[in-house]
Amino acid sequence: MQSFVQYDSNSEFPIQNLPYGVFSTKDNPKPRPGVAIGNEVLDLQAIKSLFVGPLMSKNVHVFDTDSLNGLMSLGKAHWTECRETLQRILSSSESVLRDSPLRKTALVSQSDVTMHLPARIGDYTDFYSSIDHATNVGTMFRGKENALMANWKYLPVGYHGRASSIVVSGTPIRRPNGQMCPVENQPPVFGACKLLDFELEMGFFVGPGNSLGEPIPVTSAEDHIFGLCLCNDWSARDIQKWEYVPLGPFLAKNFGTTVSPWIVTLAALEPFRVENYAQDPTPFPYLQHNDPFTFNIPLTVSIRPENSSDETTVCQSNFRYIYWTMKQQLAHHTITGCNANPGDMLASGTISGPTPESYGSMLELSWRGTKPIQMKDGSTRNFLKDGDEVIIRGTAQGDGYKVGFGKCAGVVLPALQLSS
Amino acid sequence: MQSFVQYDSNSEFPIQNLPYGVFSTKDNPKPRPGVAIGNEVLDLQAIKSLFVGPLMSKNVHVFDTDSLNGLMSLGKAHWTECRETLQRILSSSESVLRDSPLRKTALVSQSDVTMHLPARIGDYTDFYSSIDHATNVGTMFRGKENALMANWKYLPVGYHGRASSIVVSGTPIRRPNGQMCPVENQPPVFGACKLLDFELEMGFFVGPGNSLGEPIPVTSAEDHIFGLCLCNDWSARDIQKWEYVPLGPFLAKNFGTTVSPWIVTLAALEPFRVENYAQDPTPFPYLQHNDPFTFNIPLTVSIRPENSSDETTVCQSNFRYIYWTMKQQLAHHTITGCNANPGDMLASGTISGPTPESYGSMLELSWRGTKPIQMKDGSTRNFLKDGDEVIIRGTAQGDGYKVGFGKCAGVVLPALQLSS
Ligand SMILES: [Ca+2]
Ligand SMILES: [Ca+2]
Ligand SMILES: [Mg+2]
Ligand SMILES: [Mg+2]
Ligand code: NI
Repeated sequence: MQSFVQYDSNSEFPIQNLPYGVFSTKDNPKPRPGVAIGNEVLDLQAIKSLFVGPLMSKNVHVFDTDSLNGLMSLGKAHWTECRETLQRILSSSESVLRDSPLRKTALVSQSDVTMHLPARIGDYTDFYSSIDHATNVGTMFRGKENALMANWKYLPVGYHGRASSIVVSGTPIRRPNGQMCPVENQPPVFGACKLLDFELEMGFFVGPGNSLGEPIPVTSAEDHIFGLCLCNDWSARDIQKWEYVPLGPFLAKNFGTTVSPWIVTLAALEPFRVENYAQDPTPFPYLQHNDPFTFNIPLTVSIRPENSSDETTVCQSNFRYIYWTMKQQLAHHTITGCNANPGDMLASGTISGPTPESYGSMLELSWRGTKPIQMKDGSTRNFLKDGDEVIIRGTAQGDGYKVGFGKCAGVVLPALQLSS
Repeated sequence: MQSFVQYDSNSEFPIQNLPYGVFSTKDNPKPRPGVAIGNEVLDLQAIKSLFVGPLMSKNVHVFDTDSLNGLMSLGKAHWTECRETLQRILSSSESVLRDSPLRKTALVSQSDVTMHLPARIGDYTDFYSSIDHATNVGTMFRGKENALMANWKYLPVGYHGRASSIVVSGTPIRRPNGQMCPVENQPPVFGACKLLDFELEMGFFVGPGNSLGEPIPVTSAEDHIFGLCLCNDWSARDIQKWEYVPLGPFLAKNFGTTVSPWIVTLAALEPFRVENYAQDPTPFPYLQHNDPFTFNIPLTVSIRPENSSDETTVCQSNFRYIYWTMKQQLAHHTITGCNANPGDMLASGTISGPTPESYGSMLELSWRGTKPIQMKDGSTRNFLKDGDEVIIRGTAQGDGYKVGFGKCAGVVLPALQLSS
């Protein structure tokens, strides 16, 4: 499969990928859906007349909006036809776009666009589905013997997150102020978070939802998953430690969550399915599926200190390390009858692997601040410093091509000065 | 103040109240904003030409939508003018509506309307701000000595809830299925929740929001609060106990949250301000305010068993028992820079008072199932049974009038039969 759009073999966005995003341009500042191809964005609003298939031709109004929620809500048959159309009209052998004057206006250089949040996210849920991450954190706080809680292997532990503060890659993140209790059994103090962290995660977006009271069975969960993004669930460890009993993380996570601008579809990730994590004990039937729904997506986290051009890669992990699959997460989330809606985002939880270089947070990488991370510029990090840019990348290696997500990046701004 | 609309002195909705809601009728099934007056609803879309004040006359488009989010976003000066206009045109001395043919079409009997969710709720946060509730639950689970966690008196403990499953009064609630661990240190079981509970709460709706990174100071928090509703945060105690460590309640709360259809404004609640709960230790400055922002609103919870016409009042509480004020909750929520949006809902947490009849949940009323509650029909309750209707009411007693919220009610449906 080859496109008339030129890109080299290292491109994250070959014709095999075609991730969806929402973008705007100087000429047309109205955000609208697009697809990444090579170094360009294909404007779906501009080419909507080219969707001539029986399903999408009746639904091109979804490209006249500023989010992907409409496309997400249409469902798998529509997504398949949409992808087939895009692969056809972008292929080198098809002239309809290649030789059309539309080509000039509908293909925009990625360097000339502003990316926006890809969806209106009604609800955001964050899981805790990496066994190595849960074990690491548990070991630090409760010792090796009691690392995993009793429920962890029976259900995908998760919690509701804050949807309003999800931002697209490139949005700066302000270090939060809050209460911390640095000396146990002493009164808390108020001030800027001192233990600011990233969490390397991936998120998926819900397509068609379910009605309140009607669970999504694990056997059809796949039809409700539109695609995946990279996600940084920024975390204030000191605020978290003081506030989180008994109702869980709240302010420690509500100041910002960054997502990559591009949503890579399940269809594009199909070649990267690998065996699921072996689960022992066997989960309850409502969580059982046998087909592989784990994905081999190498992930990295880099930190670029302020005024430095040198990134240091501090973490090399892989989405395949996740214990609970996305299908299990969605089936669990809705087993009570909870209704999911198009555009809802469910994130994996911090993705750590079995070896220290694969740990997905500074908390684990520096082992609670006891093992400073060496940076290329000579400095060290236990947690994040003001001015640090944190950059998450994910690229799956196909047979002669790559499938990537683009950057999920954000710079840490200094905390606001507040009277205590 | 008297209205040409007739109602008796026991009405929850006199001209002093004027709560906002969203309704539809058989003749016009499109949901639209309305105001309750006596036993009627005033259709705001139908009378929008009567808003002749300088602020609202330019903003009557907010009545052409199916939610109150537009009105909420306008802010306090607009709300004040809106209320003044409504009180004027509804007063017995003003002819503009009284003697207009519009009167017949714009005033609809409450028995002829369907009420809808009053707002599109982007994010929902649930606090835990009743000291008696937190002490009761803490005593049951950790003993009297360790009842309150160390953080409880320093900050309003809260967590993110599920926005999608918030429903308006009258919507049935299906008993959820899920995992429970009835015998400690034994494997969990799967099935229908056995310990289904209500939580008597009140919620408030955010008006104008704040930008990400810019906290709402406690001193201006009041300007961001549109009004209040009654709220039942249905809870599955057995699911909660098994799942909630370490990230908090998740499935135990995501299957449904009921709100009253009417939002009572701060202006209408002004006469019911009472002294704040005495807070010791003194909170951090970002949480300090001296003006009373606690409200004397008597609350009841009744249960009506299936096929019975007899309600039994199981709880008599009061919103004034809340330790942390709504201003403190909002200032705390945003101190990290978390952005609130118009229509966000923040709930109080279960409102329990100091005496057993004022406990706001079955968990406390039956003291974990050890003190069965006697019902008028001869049956008893430790937790809720299928078919039970739970009805929350709240009515403040003014000088010669009442200010009420309408019912916040829901019937428990039996759990879906699922293979385990
Ligand atoms: Ca996380
Ligand atoms: Ca609650
Ligand atoms: Mg976050
Ligand atoms: Mg709830
Ligand atoms: Ni939400």
